[in-house]
Amino acid sequence: MTRSTPLMLLLAASFSAAALPAVAAAPAATQQPASAGSAPVLVTAAQWQQMRSDGARYPVFTKEQQRAERLVRGMIKAGIDVPVPKDKGGGYTHEQHKRNYQAIQAAGALYRLTGDKVYADYARDLLLGYAKLYPGLGAHPQGRGQIPGRLFWQTLNDSVWLVSAVQGYDAIRDSLSAADRKTIDDNVFRPMADFLSGTPENFDKIHNHATWAVAAVGMTGYVLRDPTYVDKALKGSKRDGSAGFLKQVDQLFSPDGYYEEGPYYQRYALAPFILFANAIERNDPQQGIFKRRDGVLLKAVDALVQSSYGGYFFPINDAILDKGLDTEELVAGIDIAYARTTDARLLSVAKAQKRVLLSPEGLQVAQALAQDKATPFAFVPTLLRDGPDGTEGALAILRMGGENGQALVMKNTKQGMGHGHFDKLNWLFYDNGQRVVTDYGAARFLNIEAKAGGIYLPENNSWARQTIAHNTLVVNEQSHFGGDWKKGQPLAPTPLLFATRDDTQIASARMDSAYDGVSFTRTQLLLAHPSLGEPVVLDLLRVTGSKATRYDLPLHFNGHIMDVGFKSQSAVTSRPVLGKANGYQHVWVDASSEPSSEARSLTWLLDGRFYTYRFASTAPSRALIGESGANDPSFNLRREPMLLQRVDGQAATTFYGVLEPHGQYDGTAETVRGANSRIDAIAHYRGKDADVLVLDLAGGKRVAVGIADEPDKPGSHEVSGGGQSWRWDGGWKRFDSSTGKDSK
Amino acid sequence: MTRSTPLMLLLAASFSAAALPAVAAAPAATQQPASAGSAPVLVTAAQWQQMRSDGARYPVFTKEQQRAERLVRGMIKAGIDVPVPKDKGGGYTHEQHKRNYQAIQAAGALYRLTGDKVYADYARDLLLGYAKLYPGLGAHPQGRGQIPGRLFWQTLNDSVWLVSAVQGYDAIRDSLSAADRKTIDDNVFRPMADFLSGTPENFDKIHNHATWAVAAVGMTGYVLRDPTYVDKALKGSKRDGSAGFLKQVDQLFSPDGYYEEGPYYQRYALAPFILFANAIERNDPQQGIFKRRDGVLLKAVDALVQSSYGGYFFPINDAILDKGLDTEELVAGIDIAYARTTDARLLSVAKAQKRVLLSPEGLQVAQALAQDKATPFAFVPTLLRDGPDGTEGALAILRMGGENGQALVMKNTKQGMGHGHFDKLNWLFYDNGQRVVTDYGAARFLNIEAKAGGIYLPENNSWARQTIAHNTLVVNEQSHFGGDWKKGQPLAPTPLLFATRDDTQIASARMDSAYDGVSFTRTQLLLAHPSLGEPVVLDLLRVTGSKATRYDLPLHFNGHIMDVGFKSQSAVTSRPVLGKANGYQHVWVDASSEPSSEARSLTWLLDGRFYTYRFASTAPSRALIGESGANDPSFNLRREPMLLQRVDGQAATTFYGVLEPHGQYDGTAETVRGANSRIDAIAHYRGKDADVLVLDLAGGKRVAVGIADEPDKPGSHEVSGGGQSWRWDGGWKRFDSSTGKDSK
Repeated sequence: MTRSTPLMLLLAASFSAAALPAVAAAPAATQQPASAGSAPVLVTAAQWQQMRSDGARYPVFTKEQQRAERLVRGMIKAGIDVPVPKDKGGGYTHEQHKRNYQAIQAAGALYRLTGDKVYADYARDLLLGYAKLYPGLGAHPQGRGQIPGRLFWQTLNDSVWLVSAVQGYDAIRDSLSAADRKTIDDNVFRPMADFLSGTPENFDKIHNHATWAVAAVGMTGYVLRDPTYVDKALKGSKRDGSAGFLKQVDQLFSPDGYYEEGPYYQRYALAPFILFANAIERNDPQQGIFKRRDGVLLKAVDALVQSSYGGYFFPINDAILDKGLDTEELVAGIDIAYARTTDARLLSVAKAQKRVLLSPEGLQVAQALAQDKATPFAFVPTLLRDGPDGTEGALAILRMGGENGQALVMKNTKQGMGHGHFDKLNWLFYDNGQRVVTDYGAARFLNIEAKAGGIYLPENNSWARQTIAHNTLVVNEQSHFGGDWKKGQPLAPTPLLFATRDDTQIASARMDSAYDGVSFTRTQLLLAHPSLGEPVVLDLLRVTGSKATRYDLPLHFNGHIMDVGFKSQSAVTSRPVLGKANGYQHVWVDASSEPSSEARSLTWLLDGRFYTYRFASTAPSRALIGESGANDPSFNLRREPMLLQRVDGQAATTFYGVLEPHGQYDGTAETVRGANSRIDAIAHYRGKDADVLVLDLAGGKRVAVGIADEPDKPGSHEVSGGGQSWRWDGGWKRFDSSTGKDSK
Repeated sequence: MTRSTPLMLLLAASFSAAALPAVAAAPAATQQPASAGSAPVLVTAAQWQQMRSDGARYPVFTKEQQRAERLVRGMIKAGIDVPVPKDKGGGYTHEQHKRNYQAIQAAGALYRLTGDKVYADYARDLLLGYAKLYPGLGAHPQGRGQIPGRLFWQTLNDSVWLVSAVQGYDAIRDSLSAADRKTIDDNVFRPMADFLSGTPENFDKIHNHATWAVAAVGMTGYVLRDPTYVDKALKGSKRDGSAGFLKQVDQLFSPDGYYEEGPYYQRYALAPFILFANAIERNDPQQGIFKRRDGVLLKAVDALVQSSYGGYFFPINDAILDKGLDTEELVAGIDIAYARTTDARLLSVAKAQKRVLLSPEGLQVAQALAQDKATPFAFVPTLLRDGPDGTEGALAILRMGGENGQALVMKNTKQGMGHGHFDKLNWLFYDNGQRVVTDYGAARFLNIEAKAGGIYLPENNSWARQTIAHNTLVVNEQSHFGGDWKKGQPLAPTPLLFATRDDTQIASARMDSAYDGVSFTRTQLLLAHPSLGEPVVLDLLRVTGSKATRYDLPLHFNGHIMDVGFKSQSAVTSRPVLGKANGYQHVWVDASSEPSSEARSLTWLLDGRFYTYRFASTAPSRALIGESGANDPSFNLRREPMLLQRVDGQAATTFYGVLEPHGQYDGTAETVRGANSRIDAIAHYRGKDADVLVLDLAGGKRVAVGIADEPDKPGSHEVSGGGQSWRWDGGWKRFDSSTGKDSK
């Protein structure tokens, strides 16, 4: 689904009772005569006045205002242009209607911030243009799916238009003649709100598209003083609570503020949630919307920031890789959350955004930044439970070394609806500011017309969503749930463990229903040790099935291969394709080995650091090296390397491995250090009801981790092997010792 | 050839007569009793004293000193370690001997800058370690090529050791007991200088390896007060001027300061040139070394900075892509050049380097930076003639838009000896801070042991140097000069044109001897026009041969393909290889078209900007899309896309094209503009003795460029076509007009 981003220049009102002198006594949702009912309600006149007086004292606010001025002046110079809708995403009419809503919103703010009537007149003239155009419009000629929009090819963009434009309209509405006001009320905002709220197949969904629609209709209701719109927005088109904003708040976020589609859509959905919540707080403070579910909307802002690395969101599910904390939608989230909490960590995010809202909250952030109040945002190990009750899986984030240190993301979440990928118990790894073990994200070039109009490409289904495009188990070359998200939607993994201490962090989960008759349990650790340069990732994946089958475990990594630590046959003169379907058709095979149970290694270099991955399985496996990009005649895919472990003809096996960042290559100084792994060997031993992974480290140290089959249950365990035995109580234990072999 | 970088903490003496009070009267090269002959001569005691007094006032100097302190303290803590040479580049003994020379140099400086004897004692103890080790050493066990080193696998590294260590030794020599001084003189520095100067097959070459050797021996001569070493260094081992430093200065740089191996080696060679020159100026000022050949050594510093984009050197010939202006060798070049010229543009380079030498020149730069004297370095169109007389080709650099604007590099230089690539009339293009039309550089992972010990990989010969790996003409799948650099060395292209004005810059050159019986002339322009978003590149390549043959014209580009603007057959399920040899064996073919003379286009996206390349040839050509990486079982190559135009069975043809940067994709704001090319068509017309290229631009403007076959000769020309004709006098002319078709 294509969607456009509003320029979040303005936003809904204040939360502070002290800042609400004039209107607090006269709830705006009460119907009033038009002349009395045209004062601004999303931001009050008094708040605008305060921004006008104080804004110039805070550089980031001033810059934001200047940016808005440049935008609107350019638009004024270009002249009013309200074209008949024709083009799809990225095309001319699409982009023009986007520019127009941005300009209406910005012009409204500038009118209030400068007092210059030229801005109000411009916004009025644009809206009068829409008043002529809109009533005659039917479904957009390029309408997508079941619910085409009117101005845009999909309803979603129409909702975004309304959320933005109504904020600008609120700011200028009392400057209009009664006739113009009526024309614009009746020919733009009412019909738009009627269209959106009259399309229940969109409006009454529990989905981010519906959040944009209800926010648009609800905010329009406040501005037009029409409580019916507000009621529909809060409770659904039937006004019975079976749909609408309140139900969305209750259903779409977990108690930890995780949004089930993942961070990319959380960012997008957050804007209407936060903007409309602010409008509700302002006009219906008795709703206590920001306190709902223990403050879940504010938790969602925090969870979203935690779901990032190096400024970019974890690209799980359908996600564009270059979206991050500086995205405009999150400017609204950060500013409003800061204004409600004065949590100084949020200011460091605002500082990196270099933007604020032209709103009372934006002013408050700008002031705090000018006073140097920002403190670093602490990126810490975090478990974000999924599902409305927090019982449907979780996103486990292990972290060491702070912002640019190690982050291991274990995706034990539920499916995440239609944008979800088939990647139960998938993992991502970051280190040294880089994506090391990767997720492809979405196959899409957003708004680039040459790439299917900027929508999701065919390869999003054929590659990006498929299990083989992820770092998790594939059975018989089929994706999880047979690639049917509706089948996967009710079937979440079971989180088993999440524990963190200084030198060891661990997460574990089990998935039983991705394939009929197959259960797999994965445990991952982030483990630090004085003999290691950096913390390493330990991975243990046990799979049991009912019949002999093919188990594939891919690893998508980022970097240039330095050393292939195993014998393989190279496909150097003709490059075969890995398979026929479910994403396998998109992988070129570069090399493959014979089956073996010996541990193998692969070393690559990324941004001056080496990564050695040692891996093995209890049953003999082949190792294949491949690259994405086969069967891609339109060059829609990025070409990225992958490693594949393959076990054939077994009902059960255990994959295990360790990923070690090490050393430094400095291309400027031409120095190399630590190019050799500090791990001499990895071994695996099996007990009755538990596994032990053993790492022998350079310098004679040994570290072992015992993991019970049921790591969430009490009980004692014993595993022996290699002349040693390990006993522990509980789900897991780390053992540190010396091999006695080498201690220099 | 592997080489190591010295940590350029110190360097040779001052140029300012005023700063030479004590020693100026007593030339150090005169033999003196050891007790009187141990005062420092590369930097005087008075200069050290001044740095000790003033250094703390300038932050960048202080930081440099702190860096040196960290280095030496770490080394002192680790203890003296002078291992018996064993390993090749990147291995333990190699890296330890590197660390040692860095530590000796740094410790010498710190002794002078702090007065703390612990530094002098540490440097002494290290050198006494070498005094025990060195005399017993023969050829290094991993010795490379004909001339193995002793401490290192190649002599070059031994030279670098000596250049660095002798600077540290100079600083501490007068702190030693006479016995220690004699031990170190006689068992370290003399035998090292004897080894280097006694190896004429290295020492007497006109080559950067020899420059390191003569600098090492010459600086040792000054420090040991042994004029014979100095004489050999200046005039070669036979002391007759047939070799040595002076001849190197005369032969290796062109009058414009271009170094024939290209910027990557220029950077490397510059350090010993500049450091030894400074030592000469200090101890033999009558040489006037910095005035030699109209100040060519200082011109070389300037030329090297001009030969960069975005901070990185143009990677022509064997070059590591991540080498740039911040390289340590250029710290010496910039500081010494600034001290001699006080050219404030150089300060902006020093500022970006964030480093200075711990020397009088470094102090001077640090002071100027603290006084905010830096002005931007102006990156401007520049012609750097090649060859000692400036008559053997040239590097033509066209530039618009300053530092991050457009840069077109046309490689019309001579071969550049053994590190030269077979790429006559090759081009590179930069825009928007990015490498757009690329040069692979060298196939090498410097100092990474897993990659052949860090030396040039086999693929450097089989791919990186071959013509097909560049953006220039390949005849019959053979590289220029049959891939024999010795054959190419005397055969330079002929530059025909270099002209620049505000909206048009042009360069042209001809190559006659790359292939028997084949002559090709290439003219390239950087052309700005109000109808275009950014300047575009025009390319015209005329080739004439004596018989029907295969002409291939590759284009290596950087970015993700957005649109293939021509019909092609895709190789999506099995990927064939382009050819058998001369680099063709390394190209996978993704798609290929039928032959046609129609203009085709290819659009790609790079860092938020679109690039549309329109291209055609007068004879029917095929277009192929490929990628490097075939026949590469060790994953030594980067995988990069390329376009290939192929004309078969013709004796002559003309290739022409236009590369247009346009539009903007903003992934954060999710906006796209200018995704469509502003060029409607490219046409080519042929006259009797000239060509015209015509661009029709969106909005109804037309721009044509007439180019004579002999653009360096006078005469009038006329070309007709498409109902229009163009007449001009001289080598070329630009014509601006309207098509009358569309002027909205």
